[in-house]
Amino acid sequence: MSKSNFYEKLKTISGITVTPFNKDDQEIDWQGVEENVEYLMDKGLEVIVPCGNTSEFYALTIEEANEETKKTVEIVNKRAIVVAGVGYSVKTAIDMGLEAKKNGAEAIMIHMPVHPYITSEGAKNYFEEIIKGVNMPAVIYFKDSHLNDEILVELAHLENFAGVKYAVNDLPRFAKAVEMLPKDSKVAMICGTAEKWAPFYFMAGAVGFTSGLVNVYPEKSFEMLNSLKNDDYAKAMEIWHEIVEFEDLREKYNSGNNVVVIKESMEMIGLKAGPTRAPVAPLNSEDKESVYNLMKRWGFDPVSK
Amino acid sequence: MSKSNFYEKLKTISGITVTPFNKDDQEIDWQGVEENVEYLMDKGLEVIVPCGNTSEFYALTIEEANEETKKTVEIVNKRAIVVAGVGYSVKTAIDMGLEAKKNGAEAIMIHMPVHPYITSEGAKNYFEEIIKGVNMPAVIYFKDSHLNDEILVELAHLENFAGVKYAVNDLPRFAKAVEMLPKDSKVAMICGTAEKWAPFYFMAGAVGFTSGLVNVYPEKSFEMLNSLKNDDYAKAMEIWHEIVEFEDLREKYNSGNNVVVIKESMEMIGLKAGPTRAPVAPLNSEDKESVYNLMKRWGFDPVSK
Repeated sequence: MSKSNFYEKLKTISGITVTPFNKDDQEIDWQGVEENVEYLMDKGLEVIVPCGNTSEFYALTIEEANEETKKTVEIVNKRAIVVAGVGYSVKTAIDMGLEAKKNGAEAIMIHMPVHPYITSEGAKNYFEEIIKGVNMPAVIYFKDSHLNDEILVELAHLENFAGVKYAVNDLPRFAKAVEMLPKDSKVAMICGTAEKWAPFYFMAGAVGFTSGLVNVYPEKSFEMLNSLKNDDYAKAMEIWHEIVEFEDLREKYNSGNNVVVIKESMEMIGLKAGPTRAPVAPLNSEDKESVYNLMKRWGFDPVSK
Repeated sequence: MSKSNFYEKLKTISGITVTPFNKDDQEIDWQGVEENVEYLMDKGLEVIVPCGNTSEFYALTIEEANEETKKTVEIVNKRAIVVAGVGYSVKTAIDMGLEAKKNGAEAIMIHMPVHPYITSEGAKNYFEEIIKGVNMPAVIYFKDSHLNDEILVELAHLENFAGVKYAVNDLPRFAKAVEMLPKDSKVAMICGTAEKWAPFYFMAGAVGFTSGLVNVYPEKSFEMLNSLKNDDYAKAMEIWHEIVEFEDLREKYNSGNNVVVIKESMEMIGLKAGPTRAPVAPLNSEDKESVYNLMKRWGFDPVSK
């Protein structure tokens, strides 16, 4: 896919899938993967991202991550764009990207380097080496507030740099970053912090947003997308009020709840998610009750497990 | 090695080696690895840690990291204790640990989980699963201020939990953590932030410290260790004043300079370090000059490259 085609495709929800695990041995539940992806296809998801943070990417081995991408591509079967999360060392990320490409993914999403010592110049080199090494459209996950936005401008000319999942929640900064990019660069600036932040990012120039909620309540994610696309900010903020408690629950304990709230919700409403792997702990009983009550208010018929 | 033997061995400097790379292709310079390890053995280093952060662990593939540990064990040849850095997912870390064990390393150092969503309970499970899975003495790298110190107490009974590389620079907190551990737990509390912080950590109960400086100027690291072991804090602070500029340089740009300052110094004084890999950038000319001047003041005969 060309950069400008992919750029157009990113103007939607990038749905980050969960990785369902078996309750007993915590191995990947491949049947669950299939059911969840089918569910998302039924609901009309256009961009699907296996191996994101909501997928517990860092609790997967590299082999498991590669396999998750491969299986997702097979199940999706061209009904949506598959953007495969890749990361770790430059070499590892390139290998993962080439494997994803071989297996039919349309693009990669490059995680923030996990290296503790990182400079803007070093990060620019990191992303550039991976984008060139994989040679397929790429989205950069931009999450470290210490990095300069200028590196996005320096990378903008790259043929395969097609999007940024921006996750530094500083809206004036984001607005300036959007304006800094050359107009013809075809780099899609995406809200990387989901529905809680999406309305504000859209005001600042975002053209899409990532979502974990989409695994649970895709209708709400699409309602928000559509109102934002229609510049109906009043409607978007109505939906925002409906979903913000969910995102607040995910943010508890320094975001330690981020994935487990989604998985618990999915389980309660009959989807397959299973437990989280360490270093994510199970949901405590207080938060479990909050999730249960929220699922009820949202009109589901939740089962408390 | 038994936990209590290893505990005793940790009462020293844990020297984190650099990974030297070739200038042209950035592959690992194995000849350089050998020369650097020999240099450290000559200087009397007792605990050597390949695959730490100073080793650019996160810029290595898992295969390269395993190989670095294997080669280090071979070169050390029982002259010191080899503590192999392991990390990533639980499964990956266990596999790396078992490989290190097979190759003759005496212990592992478990990196902080890189997972962005982490709770104290989840982190405890993470460390426990790895320690039990590898079944060899283990040091935990404790670096996330959001985690409770109580998890160290909960893990203290584990047969192979023998040390903590504590890297949250909150001294009263560290002092309390030391006192919280059962007296017979044989968990060595180590200053994880090197010579700049070591004197303060020792006052608060540390029994050893990690070092990157040891690659450049091992004599100073040992002078500091010996003065601290003799409770000669005045002398320790004298040495502190001699080395603090080096550590300050490493801390620049949100610690983006951490490794490259060590590598640049090594190159200037004739040791093999080579360039850093992305996402670490080369040293800028201003900092290069500072390093050069410092090497001169330290009595080396540096060559500016």
